[in-house]
Amino acid sequence: MNTLTTGARAWLPYLPMDIPPGNTTLEIAQSELTAGLSALGSREQIRLAPEGAGEGYAIAREGEGLVIKGGEAGILYGVYQALSAIARGQDPVMPETAPHYPLRMLNHWDNMDGSIERGYAGRSFFFKDNKLSFDEAIIHRYARMLASVGINAICPNNVNVRPPMDQLITAAYLPDLARLAKILRLYGIRLLITVEFSMPASHGLDTADPLDPGVQAFWAERTREVYQYIPDLAGFLVKADSEHRPGPFTYGRDHAQGANMLARALAPYGGKLFWRCFVYNCKQDWRDNKTDRPKAAFLNYAPLDGQFDDNVVLQIKNGPLDFQVREPLSPLFYWMPNTRKALELQLAQEYTGQQIDLFYQAPQWQDIFAQMPANAAQYIATVSNLGDDDNWCGHDLAQANLYAFGRTAWLGRSEPERFAQEWARLTFQEAAEPVADILMASAPAYEKYVAPLGLSFMVNPHTHYGPSPEGYEFALWGTYHRANCKAVGMDRSSSGTGFTSQYPEELKQRYDDPATCPEQLLLFFHRLSYHYRLKDGRSLLQRIYDDHFEGTVEAKALREAWQALKGRMPEATHARVLRRFDRQMENAREWRDVINTYFYRLTDIPDAQGRTIYP
Amino acid sequence: MNTLTTGARAWLPYLPMDIPPGNTTLEIAQSELTAGLSALGSREQIRLAPEGAGEGYAIAREGEGLVIKGGEAGILYGVYQALSAIARGQDPVMPETAPHYPLRMLNHWDNMDGSIERGYAGRSFFFKDNKLSFDEAIIHRYARMLASVGINAICPNNVNVRPPMDQLITAAYLPDLARLAKILRLYGIRLLITVEFSMPASHGLDTADPLDPGVQAFWAERTREVYQYIPDLAGFLVKADSEHRPGPFTYGRDHAQGANMLARALAPYGGKLFWRCFVYNCKQDWRDNKTDRPKAAFLNYAPLDGQFDDNVVLQIKNGPLDFQVREPLSPLFYWMPNTRKALELQLAQEYTGQQIDLFYQAPQWQDIFAQMPANAAQYIATVSNLGDDDNWCGHDLAQANLYAFGRTAWLGRSEPERFAQEWARLTFQEAAEPVADILMASAPAYEKYVAPLGLSFMVNPHTHYGPSPEGYEFALWGTYHRANCKAVGMDRSSSGTGFTSQYPEELKQRYDDPATCPEQLLLFFHRLSYHYRLKDGRSLLQRIYDDHFEGTVEAKALREAWQALKGRMPEATHARVLRRFDRQMENAREWRDVINTYFYRLTDIPDAQGRTIYP
Repeated sequence: MNTLTTGARAWLPYLPMDIPPGNTTLEIAQSELTAGLSALGSREQIRLAPEGAGEGYAIAREGEGLVIKGGEAGILYGVYQALSAIARGQDPVMPETAPHYPLRMLNHWDNMDGSIERGYAGRSFFFKDNKLSFDEAIIHRYARMLASVGINAICPNNVNVRPPMDQLITAAYLPDLARLAKILRLYGIRLLITVEFSMPASHGLDTADPLDPGVQAFWAERTREVYQYIPDLAGFLVKADSEHRPGPFTYGRDHAQGANMLARALAPYGGKLFWRCFVYNCKQDWRDNKTDRPKAAFLNYAPLDGQFDDNVVLQIKNGPLDFQVREPLSPLFYWMPNTRKALELQLAQEYTGQQIDLFYQAPQWQDIFAQMPANAAQYIATVSNLGDDDNWCGHDLAQANLYAFGRTAWLGRSEPERFAQEWARLTFQEAAEPVADILMASAPAYEKYVAPLGLSFMVNPHTHYGPSPEGYEFALWGTYHRANCKAVGMDRSSSGTGFTSQYPEELKQRYDDPATCPEQLLLFFHRLSYHYRLKDGRSLLQRIYDDHFEGTVEAKALREAWQALKGRMPEATHARVLRRFDRQMENAREWRDVINTYFYRLTDIPDAQGRTIYP
Repeated sequence: MNTLTTGARAWLPYLPMDIPPGNTTLEIAQSELTAGLSALGSREQIRLAPEGAGEGYAIAREGEGLVIKGGEAGILYGVYQALSAIARGQDPVMPETAPHYPLRMLNHWDNMDGSIERGYAGRSFFFKDNKLSFDEAIIHRYARMLASVGINAICPNNVNVRPPMDQLITAAYLPDLARLAKILRLYGIRLLITVEFSMPASHGLDTADPLDPGVQAFWAERTREVYQYIPDLAGFLVKADSEHRPGPFTYGRDHAQGANMLARALAPYGGKLFWRCFVYNCKQDWRDNKTDRPKAAFLNYAPLDGQFDDNVVLQIKNGPLDFQVREPLSPLFYWMPNTRKALELQLAQEYTGQQIDLFYQAPQWQDIFAQMPANAAQYIATVSNLGDDDNWCGHDLAQANLYAFGRTAWLGRSEPERFAQEWARLTFQEAAEPVADILMASAPAYEKYVAPLGLSFMVNPHTHYGPSPEGYEFALWGTYHRANCKAVGMDRSSSGTGFTSQYPEELKQRYDDPATCPEQLLLFFHRLSYHYRLKDGRSLLQRIYDDHFEGTVEAKALREAWQALKGRMPEATHARVLRRFDRQMENAREWRDVINTYFYRLTDIPDAQGRTIYP
C-alpha cells in the first residue's frame, strides 16, 4: 500500500480524493470498491448483491470471493467495512449487522454568513455570504466520510437561527437545499433542517402561538413546500425557549403544545420533530442559590411525558449541565418512558480542548453508555466537529472522534480501544499502535488539568478555552462553583439543591453521599471542605493540586510520544499535529498555574510536595 | 426666554439648531450673536471689533453697549462667552482673556467602519462604510459646540489605525478631509490626523524604519500632499509600539528616532507630532511579579529627554495605569524638562461609568492639576465622549464633562463647582442648582462602589463595564491586584516594585509609607492586610465593604434627586436621564454585591454592621 497524505482523506487514505461519478448508491458502492481494492493492492473478488431495503448488511465468503448483501445503503456500508478490514489486514467477513440507532445524526452549528458557532476547524462548507454555497466535490467527500462510518443524517444549519436563516425553508433557498440533499442521498444520508419557532410572526402573521390555526396552517404550508423539494427530509430540529430563543413559553404554551404543532405539520410526510431540551434560566441571578441549572431539563420536561406526538423526539444533551468534561447522565434518560428521546453528544470540543488540546471522546461516551438504561434513547445525534480546514477537524487526531461517533452510533455502544486502534491503523498505518496509545491517554490528562473531581466551568467566558476560575461566578448562566476560603462546589444533594432527587432512588442515594459518589463527580454533586479526605487519604485540595500538576506532565508526555513518531508518517501531518501539542502544553501549563494559584490564594495552603504555586 | 429642547443643542439651547450660512469666522460670530441675543430676548448692543490675530479676547462696556475685541477666533469665543453670561443672567464684561493651552484637543477614537472604540454615544459622525461620510449641518453644530467652550483642534480618527484608515492621508481621502477642515476652520478649529507608523511598509517600501532614507522621503511626500489639501493641519497623532501597534521598536530604533522622523516631515509646514506615551508590555505573564505596568512610560521615555525635536509633543495619559477612577499623576510630568508634553484625559468614560453611570469629571481633573507641576504640560488633549446619539453623549449629563473640559483647557485649571453651575444654568435654566448638586455628588458615589482606596481593574474584561473581581488577574495586561485570603493590592513602594521611586523624593516618601500615602490611593501603592487600620480606625476590609454599601446608597440618592426634577425640564430629557439612573442603580448594586461577596469569600469576615453580603 502506498503512503498517502492524511488529513483531507481522513481514515480513507486509500480512496482517490474525488469519487468517480455515480447516479445511484449502488454505482457509488461499486466504484468505491473497485478504486479501494486497487489502491490497497487487494486481489479479493467482491460481489455486491442488493436485496431488500434497509441499512443492514452482511459480508460472506462465496467460493473464492466475497459477497456483500444488503439494501442499497447496506451495500455501501458493507463496501466501506470490507475495505476497512482489508486496509487493516483483517478478514472482511462480517455476519449480518444492522445499526442500533435508526438515525445517526450530525448537527452542524453553521451560520449562513459562513461562521460556525463553537466551530474549531475553519468556516462552513455549506454556507457563505448568507447563501447556500457549497463545492459539490467537497460535499461528495464529506458524505463519503460520513457514510464510511454509517452516519445517515445531517443538519447543516445552526440551532441558533438568526436571519436570514429563518428563510431557509422558503423557495429562496429550497432549490439549493434540494441540490445538497440529492448528493447526500447517494450516500444514504438524509437532511434535517433547523427551523425558527417564531418564523410565522416574522412572515405575515402576528403570532407564532402553536395553538393558533393560522400558525398551524403556516407550518403545514411551509412543510408541504419543503417536502416538495426534499421528499426524504428526516425532519426539523428546534431549539426553543432556550438561551434567548423564542418558543412556546413566549405564547403561554407548554413544550408539548409547541412540539406537537410542528410534528403534526411533518407527520404526513413521515418527518420527525427533534426538539432540544436545553431549556434553563439563562438569566439567573448569582445571588440566588436555590435555582440549580442542572435541574431545569427534568423540571421542564418530565411532567409532559405521554403528551408528545409519536413523531416528536426530545433531543437531550448527555449531561444535565452543558457538555462538560465529566457529568452524570442527564436524569431525563431515566424517566419519560412514553416519550421518544435522542442522545445528543458534542463532537465540537467546546469544553474538551477545542480541537487544539487532544481529548479522545470515546471513553467519555463509554462512561455515558454505562449509565444509560437500556433503550432510554432511540436516536443519537452529535454536534459536528467539522469545518473547511484541509483536515476537516483542525486537529488531525480529532478525526478519531468523528470516526468513533459513527461506530458508536452503529453499535449502540462505545468501545474506545477498538475504535482507536481501527482509526489509527486506517489513518497512520505503521504508526497505529503509538497513535492509539496517545488517543487513549488524552482524555485522562485533559480531565486532570481542566476539571478534576467534576469541578467545571472554570473556563474563560465566551470562548470557553483556557482557565478563568471565577469567569462564571457572577454571571447569569447558573454555572457556579461558589469557592470560598473553606470549601468549593455546589451541594446538589437532596439536602442541598435537591438535584440528586431527580435520579432513581438507588442512584440518588449513591450520589447523595460523598463517600459513595463516584470520585470523578464529587465536586459536581457536593460542596466540600478543602480538608475533605478522599479514599486514598489525600485532602481534596491536595488532589486538586496533584491533578493539575500531573495533567500537565501527562500533556507533555503526549507531546513527546507524538514527537517520537517523526518519520513514521507524512512530515506535514506530523508537524501540523505537533504544533497543536505545543499549544496544548501552553494551555495545560496555564490551567495548572492559574487554578493552583487561585486555590492557594483562597486557602494559603501550599502544595504538600513543595512544587511551585505562584503567589 | 423660551424653554427649548435640551439634548442636541447641548448647553446652547437658545441658538437655532442650524447656523445661518457664513463664509468667515467673523460672519459666523455675527450671526450667532444676532440669533442668540434675539432668542434670549436681550436688548444688549454688542459690537464686534476685530483686531490683531490670536484667540484672546475682551468684552468691555462702550457707552450704552458692549464691544468684543480680539482676533477672529477670539471674537467668536467672545460672542459665545457674552451669550453665555447673558443666558446665565450675568454681566458679560470680561477683562482680556487668553487660553492657557495653545492647542485644546479632542481626540476621537472613530473607526472608518463607523464604530467608535470605547464610544458610548452611538456611531461616528465622521466615518461610515470605510469612507469619510459626514452631514455638513451636523459638523457645523459640532464645531459650534466645541468653539463655544474654546476647543480648537480635533483628531477625527482612532489612534488604533486599521486598514483602510492608514490611507486617510492619501488622495483617496484628502479631498473629503479638506472639506471637513474647511468647516471646522470657520470655528477656529484645526484638524489633526492619526497616522500609522508602519504605513511605508504597506505602501511600496519594504520597511518603515525611521532611519531609512526611503521611509523619510515617503513621509516627506505624504506630508507635503496632506498640507496641500489642509494648509493649517495641526499635525499628526501617533500610537506606536503600543498594544500590538507597530513602532520604532519593530525596527530596533528608539522613540526619539521614530518621533523625530515624522516631526521632520511636519516641520516645514509648522505641524506638530503628538506621540502617545502609552507604551508598556501588554503581554505580561501574570506569574511575573517584578514587571509593573505603571513603571513603563517613565522607563521608556525619561532617558530620552532632550532628544526630541522641538515640534514633538509627548502625549501622556494623566495617570500611569489607564484612565482609572483614581490614579496618581503620571511620573513623567515631573521630569523631562527639555521635552514638550501634552496632558491626555479621557472624556470617553471607559472606566468611569460609560456615560450610563454618572461621573462628573471636573473634580478628578482638579485633583490632577493639584498634582501637576507648573508648566509641566504645554498642551492638553482628551479622548472624545461624542457620537451620533441625538444628545451627543448618550447621557445628557455627560455633556457637562465636555463643557468642563473646554473651560479647563482654556483656564489651565479645573473649577468643578463653577463649571457645574455654568453648565447646569445654561442647559437646565431653573433646575440648575439641583442639577449641579447631582453632578458634584456623582464622582464620590461612583468611586465608592467601583474603586475605593484606589483599588482598580476589577472590571469586566473587554467591555470594562461592571464588576469582575478577577477579570484581569490572570490576563496579559499587567493590571493585577493579587488579592488573597490575607491581603490585597500591589506593593509599588520602593521596597516593592519600586514604582514610587519614579517620583520626586518628597512624593516618593509620601507614597512609600501607607501612613502618609493619600488614603484614596492606598491600594494603588500598597499591598495591605484586610486588618490594616485606616486613620478613622476602620479596618481596610470594613472600609471596602462600607464604601460599596454607601456608594450604592448614594447612587440611589442621585436617582431620587433626579426624579424630583420631573416637571422642571422637558419631559423627554427627564425620562431619558432617569433611565440612565435606573441602569446606574443596577450597576451599583452589582458592584456592591459582587465585590463584597468576593472579599467575604476570601476572608470569611462578615460586615461589622451586619448588612447583607451574599455567601
